[in-house]
Amino acid sequence: MSRKEPHIAVTMGDPAGIGPEIVLKAFCDDGLWQGAVPVVYGDAARLEWLVERFALPLELRIILEPEEAEGEFPRLDVIDFENVGADFPFGEISAEAGRAALDYIEAAARAALDGRVSGLVTAPISKKAIRGAGSRFSGHTDLLAAMAETHRYAMTLVAGRLRANFVTAHVPYADVPAGVTRRRVLETIRLAAEALEMLGEAGRPIAVCGLNPHAGEGGVLGTEEDESIMPAVKAAQEEGINCEGPIPGDTAFYRMKRGDFAFVVAMYHDQGHAPLKLVAFDTGVNWTVGLPFVRTSPDHGTAFDIAGTGKARGDSMRSAWSLAKRIVTGTGSKEPRE
Amino acid sequence: MSRKEPHIAVTMGDPAGIGPEIVLKAFCDDGLWQGAVPVVYGDAARLEWLVERFALPLELRIILEPEEAEGEFPRLDVIDFENVGADFPFGEISAEAGRAALDYIEAAARAALDGRVSGLVTAPISKKAIRGAGSRFSGHTDLLAAMAETHRYAMTLVAGRLRANFVTAHVPYADVPAGVTRRRVLETIRLAAEALEMLGEAGRPIAVCGLNPHAGEGGVLGTEEDESIMPAVKAAQEEGINCEGPIPGDTAFYRMKRGDFAFVVAMYHDQGHAPLKLVAFDTGVNWTVGLPFVRTSPDHGTAFDIAGTGKARGDSMRSAWSLAKRIVTGTGSKEPRE
Repeated sequence: MSRKEPHIAVTMGDPAGIGPEIVLKAFCDDGLWQGAVPVVYGDAARLEWLVERFALPLELRIILEPEEAEGEFPRLDVIDFENVGADFPFGEISAEAGRAALDYIEAAARAALDGRVSGLVTAPISKKAIRGAGSRFSGHTDLLAAMAETHRYAMTLVAGRLRANFVTAHVPYADVPAGVTRRRVLETIRLAAEALEMLGEAGRPIAVCGLNPHAGEGGVLGTEEDESIMPAVKAAQEEGINCEGPIPGDTAFYRMKRGDFAFVVAMYHDQGHAPLKLVAFDTGVNWTVGLPFVRTSPDHGTAFDIAGTGKARGDSMRSAWSLAKRIVTGTGSKEPRE
Repeated sequence: MSRKEPHIAVTMGDPAGIGPEIVLKAFCDDGLWQGAVPVVYGDAARLEWLVERFALPLELRIILEPEEAEGEFPRLDVIDFENVGADFPFGEISAEAGRAALDYIEAAARAALDGRVSGLVTAPISKKAIRGAGSRFSGHTDLLAAMAETHRYAMTLVAGRLRANFVTAHVPYADVPAGVTRRRVLETIRLAAEALEMLGEAGRPIAVCGLNPHAGEGGVLGTEEDESIMPAVKAAQEEGINCEGPIPGDTAFYRMKRGDFAFVVAMYHDQGHAPLKLVAFDTGVNWTVGLPFVRTSPDHGTAFDIAGTGKARGDSMRSAWSLAKRIVTGTGSKEPRE
């Protein structure tokens, strides 16, 4: 069958985590199948076991190439790597699971880079497991950036109309100030503007956070605002980007929620994650902006403690798929802003 | 008239800011007058001008000593310092305004230390103004701690059932790690336990945040958790305090909102302020726990930009008064948890 709609790859993540389960649970919702065709990269025996175990209203169909996917609910198309099997243990970190997860991602990313799928939605993996499997990467983002040969990207967190990206991300607290350079702040602002454009909201206002309490309070509580953040904001404004800052980290998100801003540029991990998780714990989505293809993922981990129990929720995976579809199909401006 | 109920002092704050206006607006609500008697420390001419300008349903009655206050709505008792007058300019930082604000606070705190009032609710002041007036303090908290001759206190943020205190507060971002010592974390946990006791919620669970993303992820993303936070949590548990940690800063507040915790010990200013302001921007209250008297204040500043315009909202001041009253009268356990 010819490719009728954009195809989006979905990797099932670490086989010992909740990834396989949330992928299946998400696609039980037939609304998700409209407008794009899911192509699952994973282990069909593992997925089949879960379908039966939790009596999910899905059928699995094994395909060899992404172009074969048809996206006919409830028949989910799976590219089967046959690398773990049905009885692989849940909840344990292992090099074998890490290697399996890497196989799915590498193949799906290659398909995206080759234009054979229009985007990529990734279920969670374990950093320890992929490290155990010999990977030098710490997660999806740096792996995908390396495959795409880009250094210019930003992890972006999306929860409805709350969106944030990050000047620094998974670094120790104490290493953040050295990472808040004028160049990096400016680049992150640019990526925020690009993200809004991809969401169909080009030109809407961006808040740039300060680093220090009260955004430094005029230099009394820190100098990074004057030295790096303010100059970057001015440079971005001169490029025509609608941004403002530094805005104190404890008001930027409130003001975005109120509608003053469509996006927040955060200086560090918890500055953005804490507020967004507070209001959207189960529905937050990670989106890597700057890659040559669309890539989203649920904003949670492998949850080894509940893997295999049926307790995992598909909400965040569902949101990740919907966001990827929205960007790929360019329906951003037509969809209501939640 | 004899003192029938606990008296609580209310300082009107910087005369050029929104302090006088929010004090008056709060006490337009007659429900606030039940259970405690407000004693305003301020400038009666300034307050009277605002009552007339905004046609507020209040009368002012000048008294000389806090014991004279009667708390009969709508007649608000004011100890008049006659130090600014009706036509003092709004919205400007000045040493004169700083000096006036200090006069109210020093007198009210003295009354609290002498047991002449049972607590203190303070409207916002300007750090620059009080510095201009020669004060060596940066705000209410350190001034009051110095007057009370205590070094053991913690600024506590309360928004309904969300509460947080802070191991470090108004210091630059880069200075935080040096402030996160085992001793300070332990002391802050103890102050959290005392705060819960004063709220009538003794023994309810306390979350202690990590400093680094993912609470250090087992040392990969920072070591302060292992070196300082974890040992402090264990020491507190050995003292019988119901606490848990380090909890990642981006999930502690979500879990408190869900009901897992009654209190969060945050490591730095924005870690606690960003989530709490997101969900309770207008109703957050600051509470200084550890002083020999109850002291609360609205969780916002002087808002010079809107001072004198009538736009200021009394919500946070109302919440600050209600919290002080709840603690002073020991009605914590009887009141519903919002």
